[in-house]
Amino acid sequence: MSYYIGMDIGGTSTSIGLVKEGEVLDRTIIQIQAFADGPIDQFIDQMVSEVKRLEGKHQCSVEGIGIGAPNGNYYNGTMELAPNMPWKEIHPIASMVEEKLEKRTILTNDANAGAIGEMQFGVAKNLKDFIYITLGTGLGSGIVCNGQVIYGNDGFAGEMGHSILIPDGRDCTCGRKGCLEAYVSLRGIKQTYNELGGAGDLSPNEIAENANAGNELCLSVYDQTGKWLGLKLADAAVYTSPEAIVFFGGIAEASDLFFSSLKESLEENVHNLYRNKIKLLKSSLPLNDAAILGSAALVMRD
Amino acid sequence: MSYYIGMDIGGTSTSIGLVKEGEVLDRTIIQIQAFADGPIDQFIDQMVSEVKRLEGKHQCSVEGIGIGAPNGNYYNGTMELAPNMPWKEIHPIASMVEEKLEKRTILTNDANAGAIGEMQFGVAKNLKDFIYITLGTGLGSGIVCNGQVIYGNDGFAGEMGHSILIPDGRDCTCGRKGCLEAYVSLRGIKQTYNELGGAGDLSPNEIAENANAGNELCLSVYDQTGKWLGLKLADAAVYTSPEAIVFFGGIAEASDLFFSSLKESLEENVHNLYRNKIKLLKSSLPLNDAAILGSAALVMRD
Repeated sequence: MSYYIGMDIGGTSTSIGLVKEGEVLDRTIIQIQAFADGPIDQFIDQMVSEVKRLEGKHQCSVEGIGIGAPNGNYYNGTMELAPNMPWKEIHPIASMVEEKLEKRTILTNDANAGAIGEMQFGVAKNLKDFIYITLGTGLGSGIVCNGQVIYGNDGFAGEMGHSILIPDGRDCTCGRKGCLEAYVSLRGIKQTYNELGGAGDLSPNEIAENANAGNELCLSVYDQTGKWLGLKLADAAVYTSPEAIVFFGGIAEASDLFFSSLKESLEENVHNLYRNKIKLLKSSLPLNDAAILGSAALVMRD
Repeated sequence: MSYYIGMDIGGTSTSIGLVKEGEVLDRTIIQIQAFADGPIDQFIDQMVSEVKRLEGKHQCSVEGIGIGAPNGNYYNGTMELAPNMPWKEIHPIASMVEEKLEKRTILTNDANAGAIGEMQFGVAKNLKDFIYITLGTGLGSGIVCNGQVIYGNDGFAGEMGHSILIPDGRDCTCGRKGCLEAYVSLRGIKQTYNELGGAGDLSPNEIAENANAGNELCLSVYDQTGKWLGLKLADAAVYTSPEAIVFFGGIAEASDLFFSSLKESLEENVHNLYRNKIKLLKSSLPLNDAAILGSAALVMRD
């Protein structure tokens, strides 16, 4: 059986995993901070040497390397203007890695990698048309039509987090106002909690715990979050008519708290062509492995 | 060179054209009214005999038949629950025609056929990722990614006219409120004219004529229409990141009156990943031929 590398580049750390038959056999983590002051080349060199170390340790030769990166562009393998990374501008990460390792290397953004992981290993195995949504610090999305991720003209299709939920609404990190992500994300949930009168600096996890314990205000935070997301998913349906929406990420773990209001809001707002057709599914991949498996699947399916 | 048939099924009439090398050589029109009281079979028989008549007259044998139909479903060749047709329910038009003529027959909705026509013969010849918008009685759309029309799970993807522009806004013919189509369409433009204080029962054409003559109220109607459409296209961009938006239809002919406010609104509201990238194009196909050419292209490209 073949071995693959799945990498997940994030703002604080990068995970590198050795994948075989849908299992993460081994993994290593690079702290971004250690490389933040230098040029990106040093970070790439470290990635490359970690791949070689994993190959040596497991006495294998990998078939290829898949990379999920913030603002990752599938078409040219670049990470572009990623706001939370120390290296701004445009960096041809895939070709840098491919040159040094002489292995097929493919890069896309993290949400697209996640969607591909679900098709290869998760709940989307039998789905050809679905929208994958990661609910975490931000709201990422990968849109799959006819079994293919939609990349669009420039490789940046699928930024559903930056569709406008409420015109002139909350400030978004992208500089605009009212983006879905400003409401449905870790930050958005905290803000909703405070706007509804919640006291203190509770994390979304704590708000979820309180909600599960019956706290009405915390229940209403998740209820409102589901309503907002349902409204925007009703809009999304008209573009690609998905069979399902697949949810992943820390917030998705609390799906019991918002799936019912989400479902109600989606069905109430969706055009009748799509009513009662769209399944809401929770990712079946483990939180810690999904990004690595998704990135590995990217190159496996190439 | 090969001959094809392009058919455009509409609420009042159906056009059938004989197409060769991107030209409509001949055409015939069936008035729906004459068949409205009978079963759909009689209408289909008429379509079939018109095709045979065109073949006889031009001494040719067509390669295939493409059909654009309201609520047309590409996957199974059916016209489904079309609100403005005398035959409601689900009708397998493509297979009925194919059986009688023994020629490859493909059906899709009219906006998708239009998008394919632009790829084959029009301004989208070199585009792989674009959104095609028909502005007429309603607002239809066809979404093309990587050179393929997006059909979605059930064949009904791309109903952009039923994305929500203004929650709880104007009544839409679909039964919901605030759909883009309720604002940006012939009906929408008339309503905007009246809401802005316009007197009388002017048609959108008359409103356009008055606007071109400098009437400020009529100018503001088209200005507002462009703003609304730009806002929603900014939202659409995050799903499929199109290289261009292609506009077709009676209202698109008045593009001089709303393209500048549309462009301004689009660029102001779009996420910076897509800013100043999306071209606004007017269809290059003649209003009368476009639907026939699009339907013919559907089967030519199959």
